Amino acid sequence: MSRSIDLIADLGEGFGSWTMTDDDALTRIVTSANIACGFHAGDPSTMRDTVALCVDRGVAVGAHPSFPDLRGFGRRPIELAPSDLEADVLYQLGALDAFLRPHDRRLNHVTPHGSLGNMTAVREDYARAVARAVRTFDPQLTVAYQESWMTRAAEEEGLPVARIGFADRGYNDDGTLVGRNSPGAFVTDADEVAERAVRMAVEAVVTTVTGTSLSMPVDSILVHGDSATAVAKAATVRQRLEAAGVTVAAWSDR
Amino acid sequence: MSRSIDLIADLGEGFGSWTMTDDDALTRIVTSANIACGFHAGDPSTMRDTVALCVDRGVAVGAHPSFPDLRGFGRRPIELAPSDLEADVLYQLGALDAFLRPHDRRLNHVTPHGSLGNMTAVREDYARAVARAVRTFDPQLTVAYQESWMTRAAEEEGLPVARIGFADRGYNDDGTLVGRNSPGAFVTDADEVAERAVRMAVEAVVTTVTGTSLSMPVDSILVHGDSATAVAKAATVRQRLEAAGVTVAAWSDR
Amino acid sequence: MSRSIDLIADLGEGFGSWTMTDDDALTRIVTSANIACGFHAGDPSTMRDTVALCVDRGVAVGAHPSFPDLRGFGRRPIELAPSDLEADVLYQLGALDAFLRPHDRRLNHVTPHGSLGNMTAVREDYARAVARAVRTFDPQLTVAYQESWMTRAAEEEGLPVARIGFADRGYNDDGTLVGRNSPGAFVTDADEVAERAVRMAVEAVVTTVTGTSLSMPVDSILVHGDSATAVAKAATVRQRLEAAGVTVAAWSDR
Amino acid sequence: MSRSIDLIADLGEGFGSWTMTDDDALTRIVTSANIACGFHAGDPSTMRDTVALCVDRGVAVGAHPSFPDLRGFGRRPIELAPSDLEADVLYQLGALDAFLRPHDRRLNHVTPHGSLGNMTAVREDYARAVARAVRTFDPQLTVAYQESWMTRAAEEEGLPVARIGFADRGYNDDGTLVGRNSPGAFVTDADEVAERAVRMAVEAVVTTVTGTSLSMPVDSILVHGDSATAVAKAATVRQRLEAAGVTVAAWSDR
Repeated sequence: MSRSIDLIADLGEGFGSWTMTDDDALTRIVTSANIACGFHAGDPSTMRDTVALCVDRGVAVGAHPSFPDLRGFGRRPIELAPSDLEADVLYQLGALDAFLRPHDRRLNHVTPHGSLGNMTAVREDYARAVARAVRTFDPQLTVAYQESWMTRAAEEEGLPVARIGFADRGYNDDGTLVGRNSPGAFVTDADEVAERAVRMAVEAVVTTVTGTSLSMPVDSILVHGDSATAVAKAATVRQRLEAAGVTVAAWSDR
Repeated sequence: MSRSIDLIADLGEGFGSWTMTDDDALTRIVTSANIACGFHAGDPSTMRDTVALCVDRGVAVGAHPSFPDLRGFGRRPIELAPSDLEADVLYQLGALDAFLRPHDRRLNHVTPHGSLGNMTAVREDYARAVARAVRTFDPQLTVAYQESWMTRAAEEEGLPVARIGFADRGYNDDGTLVGRNSPGAFVTDADEVAERAVRMAVEAVVTTVTGTSLSMPVDSILVHGDSATAVAKAATVRQRLEAAGVTVAAWSDR
Repeated sequence: MSRSIDLIADLGEGFGSWTMTDDDALTRIVTSANIACGFHAGDPSTMRDTVALCVDRGVAVGAHPSFPDLRGFGRRPIELAPSDLEADVLYQLGALDAFLRPHDRRLNHVTPHGSLGNMTAVREDYARAVARAVRTFDPQLTVAYQESWMTRAAEEEGLPVARIGFADRGYNDDGTLVGRNSPGAFVTDADEVAERAVRMAVEAVVTTVTGTSLSMPVDSILVHGDSATAVAKAATVRQRLEAAGVTVAAWSDR
Repeated sequence: MSRSIDLIADLGEGFGSWTMTDDDALTRIVTSANIACGFHAGDPSTMRDTVALCVDRGVAVGAHPSFPDLRGFGRRPIELAPSDLEADVLYQLGALDAFLRPHDRRLNHVTPHGSLGNMTAVREDYARAVARAVRTFDPQLTVAYQESWMTRAAEEEGLPVARIGFADRGYNDDGTLVGRNSPGAFVTDADEVAERAVRMAVEAVVTTVTGTSLSMPVDSILVHGDSATAVAKAATVRQRLEAAGVTVAAWSDR
C-alpha cells in the first residue's frame, strides 16, 4: 500500500535587508510552504517574491499569520482581545492572498506561526478567533496544524483540516511540543530527523522525549528552515521518505 | 438637467487607542469613503469596524493606501523602488478587501493617501506602480484621484477612473494642490467650502489661489475629516449641494 | 501638622498626528509627569515638546517606559525575556533623558506604564529587570509605583522609592488594582475621585471595591489624563486637596 | 614620520532574530564602530550586546543614527521637518548612550547612517539638524563623516570633527560617493580595497571613478560589514595598512 506525505517549510521569513531562510534551495525540496505575512517577518516585496518562487516551483502556498512582533519573531506570547486577534489574522490572509492574484491561484492553507500557534493549540479563545478569521476569508481554506484546540476549532467552523508533524522538534507525552527553552526541544541530527519523519509518515507514530511511542497521524511534515543546516536536513528527510517508498506531495494545491 | 455628485471622506484614520475622525457622524453625511489600510493609520480592528460602519450606512468602501509612515501620517515623501511601492499597495488592497468578505462586498475604488497621492500626481514611476498594483488586484477596480499622472497611468492600465475635487484645499493655476505649508493651502470657512463644492458640482469649475477660474470636472468631492469642525463642514457641503439641486450619491458601489 | 502630596499625570501620550491627553492644561494642574518614551506612545518630537512644557511649568519629569506596543497602547501583557525587558527599559530611559539635556535637568523618576506596570507589581522577574535598568541608568533615580514587587525590587537595588495612589481606579482588598475590564475598575465621578484623593493624602487610606478601608500611604496621587473629562477631574482633585489643607508639590525634582 | 589611522565598521545591524554583520569577528579587526540605534537596525538587546562587545575589545563606540526605516535599512530618502530629524537623532543618541553607562564610558562619535548620511552631505538643513542634536547631547562629541555639509555644520556648532574615507566605495570627482545603483559604486576586490585604504592613509589621496587622483585626508577608514566577504576584506585592509607602516588605532576613545 503506497503512502503519501506533504513536506512543508516556513518561508519568506526575511524582512527588508535581512534574510532568514534559503528559500531558493528549500522550494526545490518541500511541497508546501507557510509564508510570513508581515507581522513576524515578511515585508510586501519579500511576500511577492516568495509567492512567485513557490508558484514557479509548484509549492503550495499557505499563510503563516503571527502576532505583531518583528522584534521577537512572533515567538513571544501576547495577551490580546480575541476580536483583535481575529482582525489581525484576517488582515494577514488578505494581504498574502493579494500576491497570488497575478498567478491565478488561491491560498492553500493557513498555519499559525510561533507563539500564536502554540497558544491556539491550548487556548480555545485564540483557536476560535483564528478559525473564525479563516472561515470569514474562505470557508474552503484548510487549517494546517498539529492536533489541538486549533484543529478542533477549525473543524467546528466546518473548515478542512490538515495535520502537521514536526520532525525536528521534541514532543511531550501529551502530544504538545517541548518548549523552545527546555531540554529535548530540538532534534538537530539530520539522520534522526529523517528517521522520525519516516516513522511519522509510515507508522503514524512519534517517539516522545520520554521514549514513549505516541500515535501521530499527519498529512504534512514540517522541517524548520531557520538554521545553517536546514537545507541539508530537509534534503535528507525527503530522500529518506522516498527511499522508504513514501510519495512526497502536497495534500492539495489550489 | 439634473447633476449628481459623490461626497467622499477619509475614514478609519485612528490607530489603536488613538482616533482622528468622527467616523460615526461622517458616515451619515458622505456617500463614499477612503479607508486607511494600516500604513499611515488604521490597525486591523479599526479597519474591520470602519468597513462594517460604511456597509451599514450604505457608504461605498475604497482603499486609502499609503507609504509606511505611522509617525508622519503618510504625509512625508519617501523615495523607494517602484517595485516596492507596487508590493506595498497590493498588500494594503488585499488586507482591506478581507474585511469586506463577511459583507459580500468588494472594494469600490482606490485613492492614494497623502504624500503618496501627491507624488503619484506628478511622478510617472510612482503613478504606474500604483496603477499596476490596482490592476493586478482587480482590473475592474476604480482609481479615484485628481486629474494627474495618477489618473493617466490608471487609464493606460485600462482601469476605470473617477475624478476627485478637494473643496477645502487651495488649487494652483496648473490644477495641482497648494502645498500644506503654503498660504492658501486650506479653505476653513464652511460656507466657502460649500460654495466651492457647489461650483465644482454644477459648473465643473474651481477658483484657484490667484482667483482664476479653472475647469475641473469631478465625480466626487472630498471633505477632510481630520479637524474639529469637519463634521459640520461636511454637513454644510451636503446641504448646499442638495439645495442647489445636486443629487448626492456614490458614482458606483460594488 | 501640614501634609504634602504630589499630583502626577501620564503625559505625552500622543504619537505623530494623534493626541491623547491635553498636556497644556494638565501641566497647569499637576506637579509631576510620567512621559511616554516611544514604545506605547510618544514619538521623539512629542517627547521633546512634552519635556519642554513640563520644565517650563515646573513639573517634575519622569519616564514612563512600556512594552513595545503602539497598537495596544502598552496595555497588552507580553511575555519576554527579562534581559530583553531590561534592555528595552534602559533604551527608553536614555532616549527620554536626552531631551532633558538642553534644560540642564535630569530624570526625576521612573514609573512603568500600563501592562508592564501591572506585571512588575506581581512578577518578581519583571520587577527586578526594571529595577536593574533603572539602577544601571542612575542609582539615584526614584522608582515611583504602587507598593508591590516593583517597589520591593527597587528597594533591594538601593533605589529611592515613591508610592503612587490611583485616585480614579478601584482597588481590590489586597491592594492591587481592579482589572480594566472588571466592574469597579474606574471611578469616573470627579467629586468621588477628589474625595478619594483627599482621604489618601490626609488619612493614608483607600476604600476598596468591597467597601473595606485599606491603609495606603502614598507620596503621589495619579489622575489619568486619557478621557474627555480628565482636565476638569484633575482640577477638582487639586482644589479639594488644597481646600483640605494639603500642600500639592512634587516629592522631588532634579 | 609615522602615520596613524582608525579602522571603522558599522556594527550591531541585526534586528531581533536577524543578523547582518559578524560583529564578533569585526571587533577583532577594527578600532572604532558605528552602532545602529534602533531606527534602521539594532533593537535594545542587540545594542546592549554590541556595546559590551566593543568595550571588551577596546573598540571605540559611536552612534549610527538613521531615518526611521527598518524595512529599507535606512537607505531610503525621507523628507521630514528638520526639527523632527533633530528630535529623532537626539532620541537615538540618548538610547545608545544608556548602554555605555554600565561600562563607565561615553559615546565617542556620531556618524549618520545610510540615506540620512547621504542627505546630510548635500543638504544644509539636514546637516544642521544633526549637528544641533549632537551639540545638545554633548558639545564634546565628535561628528565623524566625509568632508561635506555634515562636517561643515558640525564645525559651525563647535563640535570636534573626524573625516571618514570609504575604501570600498567609489568616489565621484567632486568627492561625493557614487550612488549605490550606479556603476563603480562598490569596490569588491579585497586587494583593491586594501590598496585604496593604504593610499588614503599614507598619501591622503583616493582614485575616483574617472581615474583622477583626489586629495582626501581622512582620520578613519570605513570597511562595510554587510557582505559575506566583509571580515576577510577588513582583515586584509588592516594587514596592508600595518605592512605599510601605518599604526591602526582609534583617533580617540572616551
